[in-house]
This record gives sequence, C-alpha cells and structure tokens, in this order.
Amino acid sequence: MYRDRIRLKSLWGKVVTPEEAALLIRDGMTIGMSGFTRAGDAKAVPLALAERAATERLKVTLMTGASLGNDVDRILTEAGVLARRLPFQADPVLRKAINRGEVMFVDQHLSETVELLRSRQMGPVDVAVIEACAITETGGIVPTTSIGNSATFAILAEKIIVELNLTQPLDLEGMHDVYIPTRRPFREPIPVVTAESRAGLPCIPIDPSKIAAIVVTRKQDSSATILPPDGETRDIAGHLIEFLDREVRQGRLGRSLNPLQAGIGTIANAVLHGMIDSPFHDLTMYSEVLQDSTFDLFDAGKLTFASGSSITLSAGKYAEVLPKIGSYKGRLLLRPQEISNHPEVIRRLGVIGINTALECDIYGNVNSTHVNGTQMMNGIGGSGDFARNAHLAIFVTKSLAKDGRISSVVPMVTHTDHNEHDVDVLVTETGLADLRGLAPRERAETIIRNCVHPSYRELALDYHRRALQRGGHTPHLLEEAFSWHLRYQQTGSMQPA
Amino acid sequence: MYRDRIRLKSLWGKVVTPEEAALLIRDGMTIGMSGFTRAGDAKAVPLALAERAATERLKVTLMTGASLGNDVDRILTEAGVLARRLPFQADPVLRKAINRGEVMFVDQHLSETVELLRSRQMGPVDVAVIEACAITETGGIVPTTSIGNSATFAILAEKIIVELNLTQPLDLEGMHDVYIPTRRPFREPIPVVTAESRAGLPCIPIDPSKIAAIVVTRKQDSSATILPPDGETRDIAGHLIEFLDREVRQGRLGRSLNPLQAGIGTIANAVLHGMIDSPFHDLTMYSEVLQDSTFDLFDAGKLTFASGSSITLSAGKYAEVLPKIGSYKGRLLLRPQEISNHPEVIRRLGVIGINTALECDIYGNVNSTHVNGTQMMNGIGGSGDFARNAHLAIFVTKSLAKDGRISSVVPMVTHTDHNEHDVDVLVTETGLADLRGLAPRERAETIIRNCVHPSYRELALDYHRRALQRGGHTPHLLEEAFSWHLRYQQTGSMQPA
Ligand SMILES: CC(C)(COP(=O)(O)OP(=O)(O)OC[C@H]1O[C@@H](n2cnc3c(N)ncnc32)[C@H](O)[C@@H]1OP(=O)(O)O)[C@@H](O)C(=O)NCCC(=O)NCCS
Ligand SMILES: CC(C)(COP(=O)(O)OP(=O)(O)OC[C@H]1O[C@@H](n2cnc3c(N)ncnc32)[C@H](O)[C@@H]1OP(=O)(O)O)[C@@H](O)C(=O)NCCC(=O)NCCS
Repeated sequence: MYRDRIRLKSLWGKVVTPEEAALLIRDGMTIGMSGFTRAGDAKAVPLALAERAATERLKVTLMTGASLGNDVDRILTEAGVLARRLPFQADPVLRKAINRGEVMFVDQHLSETVELLRSRQMGPVDVAVIEACAITETGGIVPTTSIGNSATFAILAEKIIVELNLTQPLDLEGMHDVYIPTRRPFREPIPVVTAESRAGLPCIPIDPSKIAAIVVTRKQDSSATILPPDGETRDIAGHLIEFLDREVRQGRLGRSLNPLQAGIGTIANAVLHGMIDSPFHDLTMYSEVLQDSTFDLFDAGKLTFASGSSITLSAGKYAEVLPKIGSYKGRLLLRPQEISNHPEVIRRLGVIGINTALECDIYGNVNSTHVNGTQMMNGIGGSGDFARNAHLAIFVTKSLAKDGRISSVVPMVTHTDHNEHDVDVLVTETGLADLRGLAPRERAETIIRNCVHPSYRELALDYHRRALQRGGHTPHLLEEAFSWHLRYQQTGSMQPA
Repeated sequence: MYRDRIRLKSLWGKVVTPEEAALLIRDGMTIGMSGFTRAGDAKAVPLALAERAATERLKVTLMTGASLGNDVDRILTEAGVLARRLPFQADPVLRKAINRGEVMFVDQHLSETVELLRSRQMGPVDVAVIEACAITETGGIVPTTSIGNSATFAILAEKIIVELNLTQPLDLEGMHDVYIPTRRPFREPIPVVTAESRAGLPCIPIDPSKIAAIVVTRKQDSSATILPPDGETRDIAGHLIEFLDREVRQGRLGRSLNPLQAGIGTIANAVLHGMIDSPFHDLTMYSEVLQDSTFDLFDAGKLTFASGSSITLSAGKYAEVLPKIGSYKGRLLLRPQEISNHPEVIRRLGVIGINTALECDIYGNVNSTHVNGTQMMNGIGGSGDFARNAHLAIFVTKSLAKDGRISSVVPMVTHTDHNEHDVDVLVTETGLADLRGLAPRERAETIIRNCVHPSYRELALDYHRRALQRGGHTPHLLEEAFSWHLRYQQTGSMQPA
C-alpha cells in the first residue's frame, strides 16, 4: 500500500525498519533532520537512535529546520544523544540541558544555517533524515507539512534516510517550491518577487542513489498549543490594527497592506486573527509558520495567498484542515526556510514582520531569547531575518509576566537580539509606541508612556529621569541598569518592597 | 569657465551665491545633503546657513549619506542649526551636542535611510543640496567623490540646490552607477551580481525644473586622518591574513577571496594594506568607503575592481590620486549607499566584511557605538548592513584602549550593535577567535584565550568561571556584568587597585 508512494521502483528494496535505518547514524556524526515548528519532522529514526544510545556511546550534532514535535528533542536529550543542537529548539527538557551546559546549542538566524553548510563553514552533513509524503519517479523527495532546511540537508548529505509518512496527505504534493540559491560567485538574484512567485521545483532534487534507507511511518505531526485570545492579546491586536489602519489612511500602505509575517505563539496568532474583523482585504502572507489564523483568514475571505515554510496547527484545526489541504492549492506555497526568511526577498517585498519579545527596554532594544541574560528560552529563530529587513518591524509582548512580578519593559534588556536600529514599533496591551525616526530619548518617552504597565510606569520614569540628568545619547545608570532583574532574583518581584 | 560644466544651458541663469541659495532653506525644513565619510559633501550652502542662524531662528533636520568634512557638522552645531541629524556623524562637537541631548540623532543602518523616505515613513525632503562635478545636457546631476544618499534625496526633494565644485575632476564622470530600486509592490531584483555589475545611470536623473539654484565652489574634500600602521594594527592584519589563508587552503575560499568590505579607520586600512604582501591576488572590493589602501592595492596589482560609495583619502593620497582618477576608470564604481550596503547584494556576493568594534564581550557581542552604553561615538554606519549579511563577519579592535586602563573585551558589552548571531570572527593584536558554529560557552573560551590582553585575561577567566558555576546558556553574573566599566568610571581604570 505504501509502494505507490515510492514511484521510483528501484527504491522499493530500501524499505527497512527505523532501527535498521538508524544504524546508518554513528557516534560523532552530523545529522540534518526535517522538521520546522513541530511540522514535518522525522518521527521514527530519532526514537530508534535514542533507544540505541541506551547500550552504546552515541553522540551527534543535530540540525533541523526549527523546533520539533513528538517529544523528539526531549527523548534525544534524555537519551544523551545530543552533543550539539542547532539552529532552534523549543523543548523544556532540552532547554534545561542547554542551560546546564550539557548540550552545546548554536542559536542562529534561521535563514543562515544552510548558507554556512553550503560554504563549508559548518558540516559536512553525514546523514539527512527527511520526512516525505512521496518519492517521485526520478527519486525526488516530496516533503510534507514543512520544508525547513530539508532540501539543502538532503542535497549536501552523504546519505539520506527518508521517512515516508502515510498519514501526510498526498494532496501536499505541488504545494512546495524548492528553490536553492546558485553557488557563489555565480549567484543569481532569487526569482521571488511576490508572495506567490514560484521559483523552484515541487520536490527536493537529489541523486536517488544517496537514499540509503526508507522507513514507513504513520505518526501525525504534534499539534501546537495555541491559547485562545484573552483580553490582553485582543488589546494588543486592537492597537496594532488601529496603527496599520492609520498607515493606510495616511497613504503609506494600501488596504491590502504589505505581505505579513507573524511569529509563532499565542499573541501573534491573536493579532492575525484580529485581521478578520479589520478593514483590510486581499491580504497576503510571506511568513515562516502558517498557523491556525492563516486558515481562518483564508476561510473568512481576507487572505489571497500565504507563503511559509511550515503548516503548524492546533489539534482541532489540524483535523479540519489537513484532509482538505488540496482545496488550498494555488493559494499556499511552502518554501525552504532560507527563502521564506531570506533578507533579499523580505526587503524586496517590504514584509510587515510581527514577532514576540521576551522583554524590551525603554529605548526599544528587544531580548527574544535569554531570561536574565543567561537562560536560553528557545532561540532567535526567524525574528532577526524579518525584523532587520522588514518594511515595518513590529514587536509585541504583554507588559507583565509572572502575574505582574516581572515587567516586560525594563530599563535595559539583559540580552539584545534586536537593537534600536531594527525595532520600528512596540506594542503591549497598554498601548503602541511608534519609534520610527525617533532618537533614543524620544523613544524612551513614548515607550514609557504607552507600553509600560501602570504598576511599573513611575519606576521607569524615575530611572529615565535620573539617567537623563547624567546625560548621554542613550542615558543609562549602568549601576542600576539591571536592578529590576536583580530585585526579581532576590525578592521574587521586580516591584520594590 | 564653469559654464561648460552646466551643459543644460537653460540652467545657467540659476547660478547664485551660497547665501542666496541658502534662502531656499527655512526654519523647520528637512534637508538632504550629499556627503559620505568626508567625500563629496556640500561645502558652501551649509556655511551660509550657519551664518544666517546668527540673526534668525533656523533649525532643520539634516540628513546626509554619512559623516561630513570641512567642519560642516561642527559649524552647524555651533550655530544651533541642527534640530535632528541622521543617519551618521563623526564630529567631536556634534557628538557632544548629541550626548547633551541638544541634537536628536537618529542612528540608522546606512542602507535604510532612503528606504524609509521612499515609503514616506520619514520625510518629506524639502531641499536637497548636492555636490556635483557637472550637470548633463538633460539636467542629470553628476556626483563627485561620493554618492551616498544623494540620488534619492534629489529625486524625492521638492527643490534641489547643486553645488558645482570646480576642483572635482571631470574625469569622475562615468565612474558612478546610479541604480534606484523600483517601487514596491513591483520591486525587481537588484541587477548587481558581481562587484563590477553596472546597473544604472552615470548621473542622478531628475526633473531639471527642480534645480532651484546652482552654487559654484572651489573647496576640496577634507582629507582623512589615517594613522600609519603600528605594531598592533600590523599584528591584527597578520592574524587576519593568516586566517584567510587557512580558509583558502581548506578550500572554503579561492585565492581571490570573496569581495572585501572594510570599515573606515586606521585598523581597517592597515588590514587591507597587509593584503599587499599576502598570497591573494585578483582581489575585488564591494565596500562603502574606498580608502588609501584601495589605491595601494590597485597600484600593487593586487586588486582588479573596487565598488564603493565614496573615495575618502589622506591628504597625500588625495593629491596623488585625484588628478589621475581617470586612470582607474573601468576598475572603480561608486554606487548609492543603499546599493553598496544592500543586504540583497552583500548576501549574494558573499562579501567578507571587516569592521571595527569599540568594545566586544567574552561571548562575541559587539558594541560599535556607545561608550559606557550611553555616550554616542559615531553611529552604527554600515557595519550592520555588512556584518548581518556577510559570508564572513569579522570585527577587529585593539585589545586595550586608553593606555591599558580600558580592556576592549569586557564581560558584557554595555550596548549591543552586533550580537552573537552576526559575529563570526574577532581579532585583536593578541590573536583571533573563530566563532563559527560555536555555542556561547565555547565562544567565551576562545575569545578569552585569544583576544583578551594578558593584563585582563585572568580577570576575564575569573568572571567566566564564576558565571559558569551559576549556569545558563550564556553564563553571566548580572550584578557584576558592568563592574569593569563602573570601576573605570570610579577609579579611572578597569584594573582593580
Ligand atoms: C519570546 C517568546 C519566548 C515568547 O513566547 P510566548 O509563548 O509567546 O510567550 P509567553 O508569554 O507564553 O512566555 C513564555 C514564558 O516566558 C516567561 N516570560 C515572559 N516574559 C518574560 C520576562 N520578561 N522575563 C522572564 N520570563 C518571561 C513567561 O512567564 C512564560 O513562562 P512559563 O513558560 O514558565 O509560563 C517566543 O516568541 C520566542 O521564542 N521568540 C523568539 C523566536 C521568534 O521570534 N521567532 C519568530 C518566528 S517563529
Ligand atoms: C568603533 C569606532 C569608533 C573605532 O574607531 P577608530 O577610530 O578605529 O578607533 P580608535 O581606537 O581611534 O578609538 C576612538 C576613540 O574611542 C576610544 N575607545 C576605544 N575603545 C574604547 C572602549 N572600549 N571604551 C571606551 N573608549 C574607547 C579611543 O580611546 C579613542 O578615544 P579618543 O578619541 O579620545 O582618542 C569606529 O570604527 C566606528 O565608528 N565604527 C562604527 C561604524 C562602522 O563600523 N562603520 C563601518 C563602515 S564605515
């Protein structure tokens, strides 16, 4: 029954068990696996690998597109298989191992990993493990719900293991656009000039003799846990849509806006969801992850086209959308993350990028990754690719965390992922700060007034006032810059006693 | 005698004194002036403006390409003309006014200013003041030793004042390539695929009726003060060339390397100078500023082509090169800074970017702009455009400043312009740290070992050891992260008593 999905018949003999396939992976190797934000990840071989590690020394460098589902990162961490991990993760157990220094995590801009591999600044890739919904007559690999870095992993790898997932609908075929930039010094412009542009192939072109094993699986993608919008995320969405509407009325954007990107997570999803009742129409997306809201916008007739690198849905939406995914054909394209996140394309299209900050500071610098400047949360992901090159780089966050014991707007961020130069607009539930064309002292004024929660506003004003007395382009009191964080560490709250 | 430089005869009547031209500029206006790193700046009208400010209220927003020569920024500051200034400056008097909060300085990536103007997120531009060596038969403006933002300023401005500089050699004509990206949503790829690519026009195409005044000048560009290489800059160059040679031997680069970019200043100039005696050949540059070393490399037969946005030379080199600039025709192209610094092109070409850090930290984050996180030095300039998109993002700095009272490598930078994700290689005179593919803990180890001056090494190791005990992906002791800076403020030295 699975054989009709392996259209190059000479590969039929390659079908093996996950355990047999996993034997191709040996201690010390560098492995490139499919998987981007829980979608289209390899689901069987990594588990077989974890089992083997119980009885033999087996440590690898694991590269993926982005985060994985099916607890793969947890299981591999617990089995002690991960020596190095890149370029992104979002697993609580792996996160702890990274923060203990047990797994070397290399946190990279998502567009850059394969560029480093291609130029041999990292690598080589020994084995690629790629989930597929089919293999074509010529041996091309048809990916599933994500492309991520799969295409380049497969092209560069010495050997390829294909995980043929029978639960992934064959209707996905034709929804991928695999374009790989040509090699320097002969690199041509990337021929993507609209969200809709088709530039490449519907499958990953490889030499079929590199396919060393095929494993048949039936496990579904893990679902995303998207919390329903609450009052605060609704307020954030409201401020942002009001702002965009003003941009339209002032003639800086059309009613279809520019192509939209939205980061993963509850707030970004809520913001996109808010577009359903907005005055905008014929929207397009040029994003990484297509979430529930993408399909809600399609179904509401608001969205004409969505380009991404993965389809990551909640359980309910997954059950609803996947069986009818064919009905979105012609309106939806999945690309390698190098292309979905490419500076060249994002700048050309003038994408509106909406990403979530962990914390930001009164001058508009954003920390996306490090709690207290030390503990890794997930990674920078694609937020830098988008924010640096966007027409509008928007960061959203709730103004408070941990029931108000943390202010997400602080005097100085403890780690900078996006600095003043790359942050155009900051939004919390209390308001929106439009930072374009402002100097730091002006940025601080509007951020404190609009984005800091009232319970911290006077404290922020006091810091800024005293810093101003000391002067400087970006006034700070270095000895107090992290005092809020230190107070939280000492007393459990950023609020003074 | 100047009339043969105004080939559109109907413009002859527009020639006026600088004072008359300056009357076009009124209080509250936004002015775009030519000038990039002391080259090709407007030299007469700004001085007339400063004089007027003695007797009337006159405050403007001044935009340029980058820094100006001829003390223009000082004179305008002292006259109180500058309300806002962007996107870069390097004048000691203006710097102080910025740090006192008297001039609102908007520090931007150099590729981005005109993108913001074009999309009307800043602006409008009331008057453009552009230095030219000629006006063509159709009214096109032929720039001089820089293009910077001049083309877009002129195209967007309501009125244009041309400063026709008779000392600028007419041989410059034909050495400019004015390409302006098409408008979104119809933007096409930028047709620059090698350093040599010609994509646009030899002059700035404008409606000649916008030329409201022409001023004839005879003042030369200010010269750059490039210090001769010393032992330390020679060591930095040595480490870097050794590293690049290793990249060649390992097959990651060819003997012609990739196109080179080097930031302004003594160290960058010394590094390029070091290439004269290197094993590399047929080098190309895709840079912003072409300094003395560019012409030394040409004359040594090492360089085949240089693309930049300005020619900025020391006094001796200026006197030598300018009169024979025509002999470099076909080997040298000046582009708008939007194109010389464009993410799309830099990534496509795989530029090797070499920029100077003010300070960096043990994890490889770089501060290019803010002393003690507060006092602006110059601005981020093009360093972010290049570092983010380069094949290799290299930062250089001497390991010590202020006679050893400051370590340029600190536990945590007080301001982040380039973070861990964008810094591949760090070089000081003590050594080189290759950070590619490393996790923060590993980065710290190699940076401390190779780049920290011996007189601070034990101190850095001690900080890192104690931070490691506390754990985290990027171990820090928040309460001590700025202790070196605070000690310097309190005692005049980062060294403990
Ligand atoms: C920043 C980021 C972690 C926010 O994630 P999120 O799920 O929307 O945010 P939440 O509000 O649920 O916060 C996540 C956790 O951080 C905590 N947190 C939030 N703000 C905090 C702060 N300022 N300080 C400390 N902890 C904070 C929350 O309390 C929560 O903790 P918990 O897991 O113990 O409940 C996430 O968006 C991210 O990883 N971004 C970087 C990558 C990226 O932007 N990619 C874009 C394209 S995919
Ligand atoms: C970083 C930058 C300021 C270094 O400039 P430089 O002229 O090579 O450096 P110098 O070593 O002469 O240092 C300049 C001043 O900073 C001081 N300085 C250097 N390191 C310092 C540190 N870590 N802390 C405090 N002051 C420091 C020097 O003592 C010197 O002071 P002085 O003017 O009182 O003598 C400069 O390269 C810059 O502005 N870069 C940002 C823009 C950029 O990178 N553009 C790239 C393309 S043009």
